[in-house]
Amino acid sequence: MNEFDQITPPERLLMGPGPINIDPRILHTMSNKLIGQYDPMMTNYMNEVMQLYRIIFNTKNLNTLLIDGTSRAGIEAIFISMIKPGDKVLIPIFGRFGQLLYEISKRCKAHVHTIEVPWGEIFEPDKIEYSIKKIKPKFLLTVHGDTSTTMLQPLEEIGLICQKYEVIFYTDATASCGGNYLKTDDWKIDAVSAGMQKCLGGPSGTSPITINDKTIEIIQQRQRVEFGKNIDDKKIIFSNYFDINMIIDYWSEKRLNHHTEATTALYAAHECARLIIKEGIHNRILRHKLHGDALLHGIKNMGLKIFGDIKHKMNNILGVIIPKRINGEQVRKLMLDDFGIEIGTSFGPLKGRIWRIGTMGYNSRKDCVLRTLTALESILNKLGFKTTQGEALQATWDFYNINV
Amino acid sequence: MNEFDQITPPERLLMGPGPINIDPRILHTMSNKLIGQYDPMMTNYMNEVMQLYRIIFNTKNLNTLLIDGTSRAGIEAIFISMIKPGDKVLIPIFGRFGQLLYEISKRCKAHVHTIEVPWGEIFEPDKIEYSIKKIKPKFLLTVHGDTSTTMLQPLEEIGLICQKYEVIFYTDATASCGGNYLKTDDWKIDAVSAGMQKCLGGPSGTSPITINDKTIEIIQQRQRVEFGKNIDDKKIIFSNYFDINMIIDYWSEKRLNHHTEATTALYAAHECARLIIKEGIHNRILRHKLHGDALLHGIKNMGLKIFGDIKHKMNNILGVIIPKRINGEQVRKLMLDDFGIEIGTSFGPLKGRIWRIGTMGYNSRKDCVLRTLTALESILNKLGFKTTQGEALQATWDFYNINV
Repeated sequence: MNEFDQITPPERLLMGPGPINIDPRILHTMSNKLIGQYDPMMTNYMNEVMQLYRIIFNTKNLNTLLIDGTSRAGIEAIFISMIKPGDKVLIPIFGRFGQLLYEISKRCKAHVHTIEVPWGEIFEPDKIEYSIKKIKPKFLLTVHGDTSTTMLQPLEEIGLICQKYEVIFYTDATASCGGNYLKTDDWKIDAVSAGMQKCLGGPSGTSPITINDKTIEIIQQRQRVEFGKNIDDKKIIFSNYFDINMIIDYWSEKRLNHHTEATTALYAAHECARLIIKEGIHNRILRHKLHGDALLHGIKNMGLKIFGDIKHKMNNILGVIIPKRINGEQVRKLMLDDFGIEIGTSFGPLKGRIWRIGTMGYNSRKDCVLRTLTALESILNKLGFKTTQGEALQATWDFYNINV
Repeated sequence: MNEFDQITPPERLLMGPGPINIDPRILHTMSNKLIGQYDPMMTNYMNEVMQLYRIIFNTKNLNTLLIDGTSRAGIEAIFISMIKPGDKVLIPIFGRFGQLLYEISKRCKAHVHTIEVPWGEIFEPDKIEYSIKKIKPKFLLTVHGDTSTTMLQPLEEIGLICQKYEVIFYTDATASCGGNYLKTDDWKIDAVSAGMQKCLGGPSGTSPITINDKTIEIIQQRQRVEFGKNIDDKKIIFSNYFDINMIIDYWSEKRLNHHTEATTALYAAHECARLIIKEGIHNRILRHKLHGDALLHGIKNMGLKIFGDIKHKMNNILGVIIPKRINGEQVRKLMLDDFGIEIGTSFGPLKGRIWRIGTMGYNSRKDCVLRTLTALESILNKLGFKTTQGEALQATWDFYNINV
């Protein structure tokens, strides 16, 4: 039999697109003892989580809760519950995660229409309005922030357009939530899902979602399957695990047994939201903007180019174009091996073309930005990419001096 | 804005059907720092988890990994990936979790046949063979241990029967694995799923599964959906999150991005399996048998009756018939409020008829058994159920003296 050691993860500064280092208070929270799923204190924590994420999502939606799975579990739970086979959906794709929304809605047997812009751009509202008029979808499914391109799609006007044409409006806020403004109710977004391992600053494994009453009504027209009860095959939600009707019955005062809530993941989600609210959502977004911009400033002054439409960049992630004659993966390996710093690679049309550097959650800090810049610059110098000594760092210090 | 406090769960001794108190070493493991999903150390941990759970499941199956979700996520991932719409499945139901297998396979649009025995009994192999001959299913889907009834279905002969009739044999070992023998390969089980929060002794939120090559071949005939690629609608697996083909591509050396592995849950699963292997699987099962039997002994000597066919009881859980004129929920509330001890209620036909008391994982210990017995006896006495002072406890001590 093999000998296995206890987990002892190496020291890493995680400056990629997530997961990121998490606040020690969240790590400590996760070492709390378990309690039973119907313990009054556990159901109290579940209720608190609902309240906390209403604040995070800027919503009054009663049905704001956690799906036990990673970010795409939240997406799939919403899609499989609200989209009937044959329903027409429209997906504006501006990166990898728009493609994912296509892939998930196809699995739900939706009739899927897509529109695309080149990676690095976002959609102008009139382009979406034009497509809605032409296609007449029941659902508009968008990504808010797409880490693959670093772009943040403005949603405010799109919500109004959807309302005008009576289209249900869903957005995937996995990468944006907690580091960029997201105003579910003000922006007329009907359903939102998020993930923990980006700006919310927790471990992957649970997905906060919020769904408004109008969308819940659509979901409630569909059926669960219960042993011994008649079912109408056409009305079934084709998943038990992701049946939002059953999940709501578990989270609501009915407390009907569904899954056993992932206790430790819930503790973490509770602490993540609590810390954000303690900091202040507005303050936190400003912090993400500050350190995101500081990184941008340092990178530019190192003589590197930025990917995409900077005006629409998420606060928490930056696409850096890999200079000619530099092997991007070699740089990432040296960053990790010699400095313990992880920066992100990229995929699809951007594979090998950009690095993605995140400054999110707990790692949206001055020391993280400066450590990353010095390590990157020294490696680039070593590999033959010339920079002016001191310039990038001094520019970053100057930026902080002006903006803090 | 409301003020929220940090999570501070109350002290509980969890003697229900799970979750249970978990070993402090597992709690500590969960407070380890996160690392990136493609960090060489993370992929190393993923490989170790595969090795560890091969030992736990007693299998050589290459495809032994975690599904990021609670126990029923593991079930649903296997079902949605291997069962095509219209496939004939046979489900022997001997409790609530057999009903759940029905409910999940209906959602997969299987053609579902069920057979039943009264709750508290198990199936004789010839009954299953008879039904297989009659129905000719493609899949036999069973529960191994059903916590709702405390029964453990013997699987050894059933595996041979399935092999004889070329039926794919799946079992749900959520409640049994880690506290009762489970020999995947020797018993010819083609696919198994489990959960963490019972005898494996961890937090709910990740589901270890193992699938043999024969079953993987069936799954590989089905298709993923990828943006920009042609798809054959008839071959699609109707879930992205639970598409085992994609999950395997993530866990295998291909390392294709799917979800972001729930790092902390994986750390916990690693430590749970490591501690079991350190203790020795055989020793651990004997420990579960010892303390399960000790509890049974004490309960009987308190003058209480046991539910179901004791010969086929799981080691880790006991059904105790609630005496006449005793309000079962009042007892549970007093146990929790006055002693901090949680025991289980029950559902379906057993609702209000039995308590379910677990002795599993870390809580399969003498002190847990004795604390539970004394608390229960004192409450029963208070509520008017008479016992002979000292008898139950002395019988339990005597049992331990003979058997340790």
